[in-house]
Amino acid sequence: MNKKMVLFTLGKLLKVEAGLLLLPLLVSLIYQEKVTTSYAFVSIFVFLVGFLLCRKTPKNRNIYAKEGFFIVGVSWCLLSLFGALPFVLTGEIPSFTNAFFETVSGFTTTGSSILSTLEGMSHASLFWRSFTHWVGGMGILVFTVAFIPLASGRTMHILKAEMPGPVIGKLVSKVRVTARILYVIYGALTVLQIVLLIIGGMPVFDSMLNSFATAGTGGFSVTDAGIAGYNSAYIDGVITVFMILFGINFNLIYFFIIGKIIPVLKSEELRGYLTTIAVATILITVNIASQYPSYLKAFRYAVFQVASIITTTGFATADYDLWPMFSQVILLSLMFIGACAGSTGGGIKVSRIMMLSKHALQELKRILHSRTVTTLNFEGEAIAPKTISNIHSYLVLYLLVFASSLLIISLENVDFHTTFSAVATCINNVGPGFNGVGPTHNFGFLSNLSKWTLSFAMLAGRLEIFPILILFSKSFWRS
Amino acid sequence: MNKKMVLFTLGKLLKVEAGLLLLPLLVSLIYQEKVTTSYAFVSIFVFLVGFLLCRKTPKNRNIYAKEGFFIVGVSWCLLSLFGALPFVLTGEIPSFTNAFFETVSGFTTTGSSILSTLEGMSHASLFWRSFTHWVGGMGILVFTVAFIPLASGRTMHILKAEMPGPVIGKLVSKVRVTARILYVIYGALTVLQIVLLIIGGMPVFDSMLNSFATAGTGGFSVTDAGIAGYNSAYIDGVITVFMILFGINFNLIYFFIIGKIIPVLKSEELRGYLTTIAVATILITVNIASQYPSYLKAFRYAVFQVASIITTTGFATADYDLWPMFSQVILLSLMFIGACAGSTGGGIKVSRIMMLSKHALQELKRILHSRTVTTLNFEGEAIAPKTISNIHSYLVLYLLVFASSLLIISLENVDFHTTFSAVATCINNVGPGFNGVGPTHNFGFLSNLSKWTLSFAMLAGRLEIFPILILFSKSFWRS
Repeated sequence: MNKKMVLFTLGKLLKVEAGLLLLPLLVSLIYQEKVTTSYAFVSIFVFLVGFLLCRKTPKNRNIYAKEGFFIVGVSWCLLSLFGALPFVLTGEIPSFTNAFFETVSGFTTTGSSILSTLEGMSHASLFWRSFTHWVGGMGILVFTVAFIPLASGRTMHILKAEMPGPVIGKLVSKVRVTARILYVIYGALTVLQIVLLIIGGMPVFDSMLNSFATAGTGGFSVTDAGIAGYNSAYIDGVITVFMILFGINFNLIYFFIIGKIIPVLKSEELRGYLTTIAVATILITVNIASQYPSYLKAFRYAVFQVASIITTTGFATADYDLWPMFSQVILLSLMFIGACAGSTGGGIKVSRIMMLSKHALQELKRILHSRTVTTLNFEGEAIAPKTISNIHSYLVLYLLVFASSLLIISLENVDFHTTFSAVATCINNVGPGFNGVGPTHNFGFLSNLSKWTLSFAMLAGRLEIFPILILFSKSFWRS
Repeated sequence: MNKKMVLFTLGKLLKVEAGLLLLPLLVSLIYQEKVTTSYAFVSIFVFLVGFLLCRKTPKNRNIYAKEGFFIVGVSWCLLSLFGALPFVLTGEIPSFTNAFFETVSGFTTTGSSILSTLEGMSHASLFWRSFTHWVGGMGILVFTVAFIPLASGRTMHILKAEMPGPVIGKLVSKVRVTARILYVIYGALTVLQIVLLIIGGMPVFDSMLNSFATAGTGGFSVTDAGIAGYNSAYIDGVITVFMILFGINFNLIYFFIIGKIIPVLKSEELRGYLTTIAVATILITVNIASQYPSYLKAFRYAVFQVASIITTTGFATADYDLWPMFSQVILLSLMFIGACAGSTGGGIKVSRIMMLSKHALQELKRILHSRTVTTLNFEGEAIAPKTISNIHSYLVLYLLVFASSLLIISLENVDFHTTFSAVATCINNVGPGFNGVGPTHNFGFLSNLSKWTLSFAMLAGRLEIFPILILFSKSFWRS
């Protein structure tokens, strides 16, 4: 492994984080808050560590798959460790385990919180908390690749390891330009949402933070009441639309913007994603109708919740724990399905589920007509056996991480619904679960062991298992 | 498709079922019960239907994979439909849906029951109920292949479709002789268990029925108190040992009997199976120790329950719903793992889980050392890519059936633990679940829709998905 280049990249990355920490510092200055010194201190400290790591520019700047996966796995752990420091130093989240959980939850765009109330939290920390969603959504390494001089051309491995989804395409021939395009779209859409929310009467500060949480499909709230507190059908509507938008493959959004409509219309994944949203919304609307004054009202809460859960954002405008079990199981299923590949959403991803199903049904056909060899097509192209084999491995490792986490969380000795959904919501980067970790509760009551386990599950889910498991693999450290 | 041969085989099979129905008839004669006429009538009726189907011996007696899967899928449905008739006619289970559920649960060796009490049930029906476990355990088609003249040599497809596990080996060159050997071992072990239970003071009738339920890894009780009612450490011990035995690949038992010890000692699956039992038993013993007067007592209940659940038998000597959530989640995991391939047990099977894990870990290594091509070995042989692809398809279809069933059962609007475990216990052919379908409850309260859904899940689980799904596949009926 090219160790020098790994350290150099990690150093660059910490410098970027130091830079990002200047934003909450600015917020604290604007609101004249006491936490200013804490943020200043952490920013300088992180910068110094970064500076020490990348003092020397390595001669060999090549990065291969192995380095790519390792850098991504380690950097997300480092970012979260350093990113948790402000919460501890300001005393707003005194326990480091809690602060780490909250920061991992932020960067991985999960949105599960250990806080029982946001009352009294500084604007700077509220900002930093929601801003981690925005940074983690598209990926900090994608950001670094886009804007910081790094390696010479070989950075595709990093993008592949950090970006969600089984197949990541380059939009243009240069990886760096692709990364820039992605971030520009991401930024523009975020600004658009902020403006639309301000028009709807949401305070500017809240509009920014809620848009960060939507764009990254994170779901941290700004106030204890959450989105429901604004009590506005317009705001619910805007957020619903933007949640669905940020769950779409950004390549398609790019094509749409530059006027290439055909690939958008032809996309199987997009169709699958929108169909799932439509079907789930209809089923839940009918199922919960009797609990609401009108079908329209039921629809409003159903579509918001469906969009929020399938994109793994995790906002809640209704206490869906009070909905019938049928609606709850639909939402639980959506947690696993997740959003589209190449979006900021989590979960298994619509494209993976579609490819897995296609492959499985093909096997059924193969049994019936043993001599026909059919190729497997997705999005108009044949799927390479290597790709399908990789997705299968992903699925198996995902299930193993899920089962192991479930076993550890079961030591809490709380009810099964809470236990199961705590793991499901964390590994799929959703946010709230059901019952004890439902939308009106939080993760604060869990033991430290559970919090570290769930932090691990969130990271494994966000980075799609491989980069995190590699850090624990014997064969990696042996070589 | 060779339709004539399919009908011919189904006819033969119904004749076999008519013959099997003579056994409860005999029991009713011995106990001089009123149900005699019902059993006589059903036996004659099933024989006549079978007779009509196989009046003409087809010239073309070839059976290919397609016919094999179809015969297996249809015959299990037919067997259960006809097998349910006695319960309806005797009035002991008046609702056909309930009787069908109970019979499917019997043949698939699940052991989930809709009966709230066994008080007042005739000996004949108790016998028939438990005997379906014994018949379904090794498979009625394997039985037919072994003892009834059928097709000419091409019956391997039937065995492959009916027997549990990803790879079914022939013990000797002839399929028919292999099937006979399997049934002889099966019968001999069952007789041995009956004798050992009688020695332990269990009534002869109970010893037979409990041995049928153990051998088939079914789990129907003979009395309301179940195995716990005999209140004997000896009986618990005998049943524990035999449950574990019947969860082992019968090929290994055959090798052991003929003195070939090496393949037994070398078997990766057997080692994995026994290790899982040992680890689960230790963890549960420690976890539940405080609820019992001594570690020894805790061990007794733990090992019984672990053996019962991993082999998917489903007997219970303790109300494990009262155990801590950690022990409950271990048991739930064991439901999914299941027993060894080529045994009478259900679940995903130890060998499948081991092969899936090996393949997934190999993918991790491939990422690290992109140029090394390593073959995947299991039980000392390279696994063909076709085999691993088939297992992956199985896993995906299994998960899809699981998720669909869960959605339908959630319409019951009962708690999540009950909903989830009802599906888990049925698709894995275990028997009891947790909470509302826990060891002290039954499945009687469910709606007809749920009962048909769970019957489907039990059949899909027992036949390992493909033969049942083929019946619903468009491409099958089109051709």
